[in-house]
Amino acid sequence: MVDRPTINRRRLLTGGAAVAATGATLASVRATEKGTDTAGFGAHRESFHGVHQAGVATAPQAHATFVALDLRPGAARSPREALTAVLKLWTSDAARLTQGEPALADTEPELALRPARLTVTVGLGPAVFDQIGAPHLRPDGAAPLPTFGVDRLDEKWCGGDLLLQICADDLVPVAHACRVLLKNVRTLATPRWRQNGFRGAHGADTDGTTMRNLMGQVDGTANLRAPGEFDRYVWDAGEQHRWFAGGTVAVIRRIRAEMDTWDELDRTSKEMALGRRLDTGAPLTGAREFDEPDFAAEENGIPVIPPNAHIALAHARTDDEHFLRRGYNYDDAAGECGLVFAAYQRAPMRQFVPVLRRLAGADALNAWITTVGSATFAILPGVPTDGYLGQPLLEA
Amino acid sequence: MVDRPTINRRRLLTGGAAVAATGATLASVRATEKGTDTAGFGAHRESFHGVHQAGVATAPQAHATFVALDLRPGAARSPREALTAVLKLWTSDAARLTQGEPALADTEPELALRPARLTVTVGLGPAVFDQIGAPHLRPDGAAPLPTFGVDRLDEKWCGGDLLLQICADDLVPVAHACRVLLKNVRTLATPRWRQNGFRGAHGADTDGTTMRNLMGQVDGTANLRAPGEFDRYVWDAGEQHRWFAGGTVAVIRRIRAEMDTWDELDRTSKEMALGRRLDTGAPLTGAREFDEPDFAAEENGIPVIPPNAHIALAHARTDDEHFLRRGYNYDDAAGECGLVFAAYQRAPMRQFVPVLRRLAGADALNAWITTVGSATFAILPGVPTDGYLGQPLLEA
Ligand code: HEM
Ligand code: HEM
Repeated sequence: MVDRPTINRRRLLTGGAAVAATGATLASVRATEKGTDTAGFGAHRESFHGVHQAGVATAPQAHATFVALDLRPGAARSPREALTAVLKLWTSDAARLTQGEPALADTEPELALRPARLTVTVGLGPAVFDQIGAPHLRPDGAAPLPTFGVDRLDEKWCGGDLLLQICADDLVPVAHACRVLLKNVRTLATPRWRQNGFRGAHGADTDGTTMRNLMGQVDGTANLRAPGEFDRYVWDAGEQHRWFAGGTVAVIRRIRAEMDTWDELDRTSKEMALGRRLDTGAPLTGAREFDEPDFAAEENGIPVIPPNAHIALAHARTDDEHFLRRGYNYDDAAGECGLVFAAYQRAPMRQFVPVLRRLAGADALNAWITTVGSATFAILPGVPTDGYLGQPLLEA
Repeated sequence: MVDRPTINRRRLLTGGAAVAATGATLASVRATEKGTDTAGFGAHRESFHGVHQAGVATAPQAHATFVALDLRPGAARSPREALTAVLKLWTSDAARLTQGEPALADTEPELALRPARLTVTVGLGPAVFDQIGAPHLRPDGAAPLPTFGVDRLDEKWCGGDLLLQICADDLVPVAHACRVLLKNVRTLATPRWRQNGFRGAHGADTDGTTMRNLMGQVDGTANLRAPGEFDRYVWDAGEQHRWFAGGTVAVIRRIRAEMDTWDELDRTSKEMALGRRLDTGAPLTGAREFDEPDFAAEENGIPVIPPNAHIALAHARTDDEHFLRRGYNYDDAAGECGLVFAAYQRAPMRQFVPVLRRLAGADALNAWITTVGSATFAILPGVPTDGYLGQPLLEA
């Protein structure tokens, strides 16, 4: 058999050529990172290891998939063993995939080579702590939220034992990571719901512009940004449970926008319901997006920002009521759209629920938004290079 | 009442300020187009008017939504009147939206300002010609395809009176255009199915790389590219029906990838099933993606590219068997993935069906792909600046 440059059947059959060539492609993708950005943002990476998981403080990527899973009863000798196996597998897969490397035994290794800032963020639902026989280790915040009369919760978007949040600036790595991560734990956990979301494409706009949601509003102006704010409001410091230091609590709510009635409103009424302008996102008392709203301002004795405007009610009234909002638009095949609203905070009951309660009670926007799903997850602390997700909990 | 710069209630209430500011935002978005590309590709536009509709020869955008609709019985005095109204509305909306301008009475005008190469492409299903009393004007190609034993068609992905194909490099303009276009014809036509698809993100990679599908294959190497090929194979020249000159016929097939069994295959078997390498996309008889496959090459008396490999069977055997493939990956919420396969040609029976028949009969890939949807549409000719979509048909 001649070793022709064009084709060598034996090397193909043994797989040697394929593996070698995958290596070459990987090397060339890597090389671009050292060059200029013009090689494409597909090569951009977010670190996997660290004190916190990526995907929370990370500048929001253009695409997100949120998948809730349930542990399969009886899949391993115990739920604790099943959970440990899932978290070890996810650690191994995510550590590679986020760095542009195929997962172990990746069956589509080329789809891993351009991560485009892929992040994988893992959380545990409230019930898991009971299942693994560690109810005493559950962070207080990792509990279902109270329900409100305005909610129209549909079980199919609620709850879950595990959260897998997968974000990237490209849908190919999201789809690939999602498949790998679900497939590799298939005998241990089954998907419960999946929600896909998007923001403006990476590079469609000059950097730094706040996203718009599908109701047309600039969404995300008032938000946590400084590292100090993350330490104060987002990252758990381990006071209640040492194992949870570096973690946070995610609240994922599916909120449908009632576009048909919203679109019957004139612009002024839409702006009054929110308290901000639709065009610039500026508060009704300001000229520019980042001007501080003046909730006391009146004109002819009437408040300029109505007291039941969304931002008037959502605005923090205590030093505690701050959290990170990192939501995504959704637009489903049935033509329904809205927000996969995602908030991250140490203590939802103290930081988030008071705001939610005010909004549930009186938010002018309520006429045009309906919460149809809700789930809470303890986002695990970050992973050191020699550890695995959840290790401090499972070895506590 | 003082005319404060920060807020003028009366101007807000009359809407004047909002309209003025929308104009300002529009102007500033426009300004970026004249600057460098660093302002973001959101400003990039594809022309709407011309001899052909955009969205066929257009370099594929990162995202696509295909929506099939049915005319509502009894919605207008006649189906012909309903169709005329739909096509006039869509012309007006698409002419604006694709150019980064809000539709008339657009309720979310800001979502229109960054089209990111938005294209809207409109087609008519086979039954429409009967409905409007013009069966004699139906292009022969606009007919359902023959069915094959390997197909597993599900009615929910088949057929339709109208096709709306919406593509852009950003999902926000896709979602907005989809909503506007469906909403404005709601009384006249109802959605039948909707399929969302994606390719690699714009800018994730250096320009010109062929996309990968979710089976991990480089997909789209052998394709029509030269303008002469489009005139010969894609664009109707008006021989059968003068009104159809400049149009084409789209075949949209939903093809599920059976990832679980596909992933049990070793790489060599995957490459043999396709006839190309997974890493580079090169034919098994070549070294680089664009090397011509040598279907006659043998090694030790065995064909290097198996005769039932996908490309061996799909490769044109006559001068007629050429068509444009412009498909998209899909990855649905249930974890099912595959291709929204889209092919464009003047005469499907002569150009496309012979290839499909060979593939249906023997394609080695058939073990891992299943066609679950199929629809055919006459893509209308392009629109002159003073015309509307379908005018030559409706006024024929
Ligand atoms: C579909 C549902 C929702 C929509 C469309 C929406 C939209 C918006 C918009 C456009 C803003 C103004 C811009 C900004 O500062 O980001 C805003 C602000 C805010 N929203 Fe929402 N929101 C929704 C649900 C919620 C929920 C469920 C919460 C929390 C319980 C929330 C909390 C906040 C907070 C804290 C602010 C900032 C208020 C301030 O300090 O100015 N929002 N929202
Ligand atoms: C999920 C289904 C399918 C997959 C995954 C798939 C994948 C591929 C791949 C990877 C290639 C090689 C690269 C290239 O030239 O683009 C290819 C080539 C091709 N495919 Fe498919 N394909 C599918 C369905 C179809 C169908 C339904 C047709 C038409 C009936 C078709 C027609 C072709 C043609 C004409 C070529 C080029 C052959 C040549 O001249 O080399 N494919 N396909």
